[in-house]
Amino acid sequence: MNDDKAPLYEKLLEHADRRSISFHVPGHKSGQGILPQALSHYGQIAKIDLTEITGLDDLHHPEEVIREAQLLAARCFGAEETFFLVNGSTTGNLAMILTVCGKDDILLVQRNVHKSVIHGLMLAGVRAVFIAPQMDKFTGLAGTLAAEDVAEALAAYPEAKGLLITNPNYYGMGARVGDLAELMHGHRKPLLVDEAHGAHYGFHPELPRSALMEGADIVVQSTHKMLTAMTMGAMLHVQGERVDRTVLARILGMLQSSSPSYPIMASLDLARKQMQTEGRNLLERALAHLREFVGLMRELPAFRIISQMEPSLAVASKDPFKVLAEDRTGTLNGFQLKDELEKRGCYCEMADPRYALLVFSPASTHLDAVKLYEAFSDVYADLRLDKKELMPETTNIYNLTPPMKVSAPVSFSMAMIRHMVAAKRLPFEQAVGFSSAEMIVPYPPGIPMLYPGERITVEIADELQILSDSGAKFQGLPPGMDGTIAVVTASFFSDQS
Amino acid sequence: MNDDKAPLYEKLLEHADRRSISFHVPGHKSGQGILPQALSHYGQIAKIDLTEITGLDDLHHPEEVIREAQLLAARCFGAEETFFLVNGSTTGNLAMILTVCGKDDILLVQRNVHKSVIHGLMLAGVRAVFIAPQMDKFTGLAGTLAAEDVAEALAAYPEAKGLLITNPNYYGMGARVGDLAELMHGHRKPLLVDEAHGAHYGFHPELPRSALMEGADIVVQSTHKMLTAMTMGAMLHVQGERVDRTVLARILGMLQSSSPSYPIMASLDLARKQMQTEGRNLLERALAHLREFVGLMRELPAFRIISQMEPSLAVASKDPFKVLAEDRTGTLNGFQLKDELEKRGCYCEMADPRYALLVFSPASTHLDAVKLYEAFSDVYADLRLDKKELMPETTNIYNLTPPMKVSAPVSFSMAMIRHMVAAKRLPFEQAVGFSSAEMIVPYPPGIPMLYPGERITVEIADELQILSDSGAKFQGLPPGMDGTIAVVTASFFSDQS
Repeated sequence: MNDDKAPLYEKLLEHADRRSISFHVPGHKSGQGILPQALSHYGQIAKIDLTEITGLDDLHHPEEVIREAQLLAARCFGAEETFFLVNGSTTGNLAMILTVCGKDDILLVQRNVHKSVIHGLMLAGVRAVFIAPQMDKFTGLAGTLAAEDVAEALAAYPEAKGLLITNPNYYGMGARVGDLAELMHGHRKPLLVDEAHGAHYGFHPELPRSALMEGADIVVQSTHKMLTAMTMGAMLHVQGERVDRTVLARILGMLQSSSPSYPIMASLDLARKQMQTEGRNLLERALAHLREFVGLMRELPAFRIISQMEPSLAVASKDPFKVLAEDRTGTLNGFQLKDELEKRGCYCEMADPRYALLVFSPASTHLDAVKLYEAFSDVYADLRLDKKELMPETTNIYNLTPPMKVSAPVSFSMAMIRHMVAAKRLPFEQAVGFSSAEMIVPYPPGIPMLYPGERITVEIADELQILSDSGAKFQGLPPGMDGTIAVVTASFFSDQS
Repeated sequence: MNDDKAPLYEKLLEHADRRSISFHVPGHKSGQGILPQALSHYGQIAKIDLTEITGLDDLHHPEEVIREAQLLAARCFGAEETFFLVNGSTTGNLAMILTVCGKDDILLVQRNVHKSVIHGLMLAGVRAVFIAPQMDKFTGLAGTLAAEDVAEALAAYPEAKGLLITNPNYYGMGARVGDLAELMHGHRKPLLVDEAHGAHYGFHPELPRSALMEGADIVVQSTHKMLTAMTMGAMLHVQGERVDRTVLARILGMLQSSSPSYPIMASLDLARKQMQTEGRNLLERALAHLREFVGLMRELPAFRIISQMEPSLAVASKDPFKVLAEDRTGTLNGFQLKDELEKRGCYCEMADPRYALLVFSPASTHLDAVKLYEAFSDVYADLRLDKKELMPETTNIYNLTPPMKVSAPVSFSMAMIRHMVAAKRLPFEQAVGFSSAEMIVPYPPGIPMLYPGERITVEIADELQILSDSGAKFQGLPPGMDGTIAVVTASFFSDQS
């Protein structure tokens, strides 16, 4: 096997060059049926949009070129075995939970995880014990798990099947993954990492080390997010013996399309080759562009730009490519700042009430960095931010500690969906004793305070009221419904699960 | 709304043309980070490989351009509501089962369904009652369900949540869907149709009518298989009130990537526009090419070519685009015939011990038809098939009726995967009383005789022995394992489900 080959992509080219005639799916027949208006975009990719015909292997039973591409990926990312994903990290998160947990098993779960993790808990029928993250005072955002809190959860639930974390979080903040791995392994349990935002980790000394380097047992990475695969291209990596790979392969075979996209799979092969052959150089160059941007932004002191962070209890590492931008004058909230940048041609990843989040990648150029600075500069001038006073630091105005470090087990199931859809809505104080039928995420602190199926205690209701009175926003609430929760009778979920 | 627009594709173009700068995922940044060697294939598609940024809507909460594209698709395909799928019909099949069935619910299921249906039964924890298809004497293949057998199952299991069929089957054979719909609706139960191979149905008078036209409640179509979407592009259509669409939307939001591929979604939009604006003409032209091929093949009488079929009890309709080819001299079995055609540049969809299956589509050309004839003609000459005697008709050498028209309920669950992986293997006669840990598909007749979790009765063991003694092949069996089944103690599955 040769690292500077992209065997799957090259095999597709070989087939395409043969100009064989297609009497198989897909129906566009190597692009000859694509609408003429779309040929400029789809014409070339359609030539390699093939299927499991002779010579092109089978993702669900890889023995030839897909196997080779996966072996190369495993070597590149430091796994013992790598599985290509064509339906994004979503499928990876569902599959790792279904592999590790049977119905009613306990799993320790970081409270601020991606929604696909919650969906995995529902599909598997898991009883989740949520562990609250440490709060980061510097940004006012939810940080990562402390090993001591995980140890507390392990002591209370020694039957837990493992620990699942989403790391880094959406803002690029990471935990001490090595400490968590060591703790879990000490109890002979696996560490599961949703590393969707960290596929580039470990390829440059200025970036955090990858979860695999830190000892995680099973890791999901969105190769499309921070590397250069096509959207939905992702990988699931495994090392060690704590996860049953035969079961895992079967479950992936259930969740992934039986006609997986070859262009997406080949883009994984190409992104791997790129990292292996020139990853460090690309990252070095992109980091230089990023530093230049951060340097330029010092001329606009009304903007706070967070790219790197000093390690703290809540945040052990920070992805420099995830840039948080805040208007320190308070003239623009995060959403408005995002709008202003987009009016000037710079599209953001997302915004929250405080920050706009901007994502650089190995593909970001010098020109990108300069244009972004110019957009900020233009906003600065148009709104005369230099004339305005800076706001006082606002990070500590709320009680940032969720009431429970370690939650009671929350029983997830598919049956709860029917209850969620039919739930009634009550004010916070009347909701005590019921179970939530929705995810309640006040911002700040941006952590889900309640998950569907989680019991609403007096402490949580009080905390939500305090947050609401202090001006916290509740994500996803229907208009005019501030201060309410959709609830079901507490016994419903456990009866039906 | 305008049928000859492709709103989603056009919106992507609009964004791409704006040359805005990406500070969001995907990491390839509109293609600027793609490996140079792959730019010729990926460069153009990467420009529209975008994500849920401002203006591009959100598949999981469609309110703008994705909603519009889905409404146009619903109008085109005759649904009340259409959901775009980016992980193939696989996701659609999983979602429709999870929507209609809770744990331990009974579902009536055609015995010869696609494996994704079985995976849906496992995920939902369904108790499946399998109904055996009628056998088709003309082809010797498993046909479709007879309404009287479904009626028998309904009488035995009045609590069933509905009926699921895979229709047409892989060979293009279809049931009397209207009769099945009427029967189910008479019992106020929904008909679920995996119509993965029938996205083109209903767009031309020579093609079978679509399942939606026949009254099906929920229908999954692979738009990439017989129409011109990119691979993994599919649709789920709903009509009527028998399926809860709110629950369905939530479940799709769990199973599909939270970063769905815009190029795949836009290709659904384009394929819909193509059908709506010129579908009938394209199909007319492709049917003419097909007729020409079939006509030419009359010069090579040693090959039996099945494109259309007279309606029979087992096969009510036949997709002419699915062409079965058989060497009537017996010189080449289906696999060998496929190989010979592929050596001559014509790639097949699949083969079985008897037939090679060739798939035409609206994108097939006159040249394709001629080249395929030439390939057959070349095989004919090289193997001197004109000098050989035709085999006697072989369709009736096996007992083609599975022992049970209507099976006992088979309990599916995710827990069974662990048992399947750890099962032991026994000869047929010793397996009686155990449960199968694998799918057993003798060919002929090509129907799964046993599903994982299904109890092995004396009748089934005898039938398998007869088939084996008569020379039937058992798909997917490890080498040297003919005549055996992987089994687990019969109580295992029910205890664990």
